[in-house]
Amino acid sequence: MATFVVGIDIGGTNTKFGIVNKEGTIMAQDRLLTNKHEDVEEFIVELHEKLSPMIEKAGGTKNCLGIGIGAPNGNYYTGNIEYAANLKWRGIIPFARMVSEKMGLPVKLTNDANAAAMGEMKYGCAKNMKHFITITLGTGVGSGIVIDGKILLGHDGFAGELGHTIVRPGGRLHKGTGIKGSLESYASATGVRETALEMLTQHPEVESLLRDYSINELTSQSVYDCAMKGDKIANEIFEFTGHILGEALANFVMFSSPEAIILFGGLTKAGDLIMNPTRQSMEANLIQIFKNKVTLMYSDLQEADAAILGASALVWD
Amino acid sequence: MATFVVGIDIGGTNTKFGIVNKEGTIMAQDRLLTNKHEDVEEFIVELHEKLSPMIEKAGGTKNCLGIGIGAPNGNYYTGNIEYAANLKWRGIIPFARMVSEKMGLPVKLTNDANAAAMGEMKYGCAKNMKHFITITLGTGVGSGIVIDGKILLGHDGFAGELGHTIVRPGGRLHKGTGIKGSLESYASATGVRETALEMLTQHPEVESLLRDYSINELTSQSVYDCAMKGDKIANEIFEFTGHILGEALANFVMFSSPEAIILFGGLTKAGDLIMNPTRQSMEANLIQIFKNKVTLMYSDLQEADAAILGASALVWD
Repeated sequence: MATFVVGIDIGGTNTKFGIVNKEGTIMAQDRLLTNKHEDVEEFIVELHEKLSPMIEKAGGTKNCLGIGIGAPNGNYYTGNIEYAANLKWRGIIPFARMVSEKMGLPVKLTNDANAAAMGEMKYGCAKNMKHFITITLGTGVGSGIVIDGKILLGHDGFAGELGHTIVRPGGRLHKGTGIKGSLESYASATGVRETALEMLTQHPEVESLLRDYSINELTSQSVYDCAMKGDKIANEIFEFTGHILGEALANFVMFSSPEAIILFGGLTKAGDLIMNPTRQSMEANLIQIFKNKVTLMYSDLQEADAAILGASALVWD
Repeated sequence: MATFVVGIDIGGTNTKFGIVNKEGTIMAQDRLLTNKHEDVEEFIVELHEKLSPMIEKAGGTKNCLGIGIGAPNGNYYTGNIEYAANLKWRGIIPFARMVSEKMGLPVKLTNDANAAAMGEMKYGCAKNMKHFITITLGTGVGSGIVIDGKILLGHDGFAGELGHTIVRPGGRLHKGTGIKGSLESYASATGVRETALEMLTQHPEVESLLRDYSINELTSQSVYDCAMKGDKIANEIFEFTGHILGEALANFVMFSSPEAIILFGGLTKAGDLIMNPTRQSMEANLIQIFKNKVTLMYSDLQEADAAILGASALVWD
């Protein structure tokens, strides 16, 4: 009789994993650097080294129902990670099978953002919702779309790649995909950093605290810190980011008419600095029938918890 | 025992209606001008005058199961037409109730484009598909989204307003909605006409057969006629339109991952002139996992038939 499952969240930078019991409590968790390993086999070796003792301590594999994984471009139907732009592993990786063989446990895998949406639906502010969209604003931009209470997978399992939709045709190049002007190029931590570099270069006459950072040090966190100190350019960076994000959200609303859009990930730490321009821009770009109907909110789950819990929910389901 | 239903398609210009039997054959059909009547009551009077004799001839109301209506911004849940940008009737119109009272028959109503998608699913090239999108390129741009074999309605019944998604931020003003740069401003018959006027004005030095038309005479049909005669500007108009439409389709694919996108409506008469640039632009803007996977095709149903049949399917269902 299984008493726990494992939830794993593969992010562009970190991989987080935990032991989750039936009540949805994370009993233990740890992490490793995703981008440390060029080779996926070596990554799985390190994952095994860290995860095995945790499973043993929780009661061993005989008491574990299985492993749920959320991964970029993870496909629920095949268990593969396919052409993930933010990972070092290229092509099609039979990730679920590889982890299953190494760990000796059944594995289910889906898109990392879909897993986060499941976490939101089971444990977060979408508990009573049938139609919502979650957007993760992290290193990249992920999305999970829920329609009639179910994750939208599409005919091949890849639905919900909203970070790659084009918001500025001919705009900023996304190095991972080669596509110009996609949402991820602007509304991610990476995008905010690029916007900062662009604005600082374009307006050399404007003083800014951001100029005290070296180019390597400059991150979305530095932009936030400077904005909170009243820095003009830093504030404009969030205005610009929110403006673009809001337009994109308006497009998503006109596609699936959700009752809420839930934002999480690193960028949401900017709070109202990004929420206000985003909401304003979304409303300005909606046609009448959608105006003032959609709740735009930040997730109230801890980011790491949501991802692990969501991944684990794949197994309990 | 009912032997037939009525299907009604409300378009921006024409309203088409027909008597449909159980086999999906349109036994009789007629049309009236939607935009002739500023007042919706007067429209319903004319509809009643034309439709009643057809119903009588088919066996009378006692043999009619009901009326299915597809209308712009039609809401399946409420039976209302709400804030339809392409109709003269403003605000919220309880259209299903009004028609039902006048005709003495039960009425079901949905978005016109959703009705067309139902027609495609029941009688057209989407017969065996579970995930597809239909795009109507007519006076406006309509869309019906099918997910897991069901029309996507969203939490309020208004999902699938893809014509109003923004494809050129800050771009061409859509007079009906006040939104700038929406797909409908470019990829509709109206949009093609506007593109023609813009290009002719911007390039006064380039000769074009289009200059032989008066501004009033210039339509998407004239652009097609001139393009077929090898006119350079006319061909560029379709290139430009297809380029924008393809970008929008790529965004839709990255949302719901359909197996096919089915185009119909007046603009599709332009055949390869619009299909080729559209396909090329869609593929160029898709991330790897979606490339060369989505079938882009023209509907093989007669446009009027699809809309009437789709609307009628609301009642049989």
